[in-house]
Amino acid sequence: MLRPYSNMGNLYLGLLHYPVRNRKGEIVTSALTGLDVPDIARSCRTFGICKYYIITPLPSQQQVAQRIYDYWDKEERDHAHRREALQVIKVVATLEASLADVLAIEGIRPLLVGTSAQKRTAPQFTYEQLREKLELENTPAYLLFGTGWGLAEEVLERLDVMLPPIYGPGPYNHLSVRSAVAVILDRLRGH
Amino acid sequence: MLRPYSNMGNLYLGLLHYPVRNRKGEIVTSALTGLDVPDIARSCRTFGICKYYIITPLPSQQQVAQRIYDYWDKEERDHAHRREALQVIKVVATLEASLADVLAIEGIRPLLVGTSAQKRTAPQFTYEQLREKLELENTPAYLLFGTGWGLAEEVLERLDVMLPPIYGPGPYNHLSVRSAVAVILDRLRGH
Repeated sequence: MLRPYSNMGNLYLGLLHYPVRNRKGEIVTSALTGLDVPDIARSCRTFGICKYYIITPLPSQQQVAQRIYDYWDKEERDHAHRREALQVIKVVATLEASLADVLAIEGIRPLLVGTSAQKRTAPQFTYEQLREKLELENTPAYLLFGTGWGLAEEVLERLDVMLPPIYGPGPYNHLSVRSAVAVILDRLRGH
Repeated sequence: MLRPYSNMGNLYLGLLHYPVRNRKGEIVTSALTGLDVPDIARSCRTFGICKYYIITPLPSQQQVAQRIYDYWDKEERDHAHRREALQVIKVVATLEASLADVLAIEGIRPLLVGTSAQKRTAPQFTYEQLREKLELENTPAYLLFGTGWGLAEEVLERLDVMLPPIYGPGPYNHLSVRSAVAVILDRLRGH
């Protein structure tokens, strides 16, 4: 089933800091976590993601993202592989802006794919179904990851597809978003 | 092929800070990365790992690990799931000490399994082979992750089995150790 990468639908990834839920279910803007910048960039580069959008409406948080980017780009000159991964990053204010960027690159609207650690109401797809669709069809897909306590309802309502939560052998499934990104990209694009 | 968890071989994980290689191939003790403590603990708890050994011979680094543990245990009281994951952690000075701990728990020596982002000389197993072995046999296994530029030769020589590097569609495979742990545990125990 494996096809040359150039024939597969391109994958994009967004890390959403607004609108997300806090532990009480309220809609908030979450703060950026420093290691989300290089860790998720390295996972994106490894699994062939075209762009990694860091989405936050707060200019101060956008500056934090830029400072972390600059640190890895300028101070870590000996880590060529880490610097290379940073090229995948784009900091944007809104989900809308990132979708417009994907549309500008691809010429068509991508399949909008949600992820969650909980079962939430949205059209379901298994990992195998999405992997096969991406390998057989030349359709771009955009994977959306929520920070805090997960994607807000208004985002869920816009999804074309929702991937199921990741589990191990038991009921506990509280991965960091960095770990969840790595696992999900491996399930969709790993070898 | 899925069996009840209680019939599977137990899994242990070690994060080695010595002996590992630096970028020049020299043997060094690497510094602890703060997020390796909670991130890898959450992956271990999700994928049913019995113990997560943080291995460093330096007392000052062991104290750093303890302080990070204490922070997550005491300051993050509202994050019950994160605190729960910490119970899997044990800070030890040497690989030998962690192996003795596994032996004390299991009564038999575990299968010592190495991981690497590069192809290195050691007996090879695919992920499918190891997953099946762990599901069919009641043998414990101990997964070893190197920090810095990877496990030293003297560690490779002791391995029973080496897992292959993780790849996406291209040749770049520079995941953070946190991401590599999540992907490998998912390949061995994910659902």
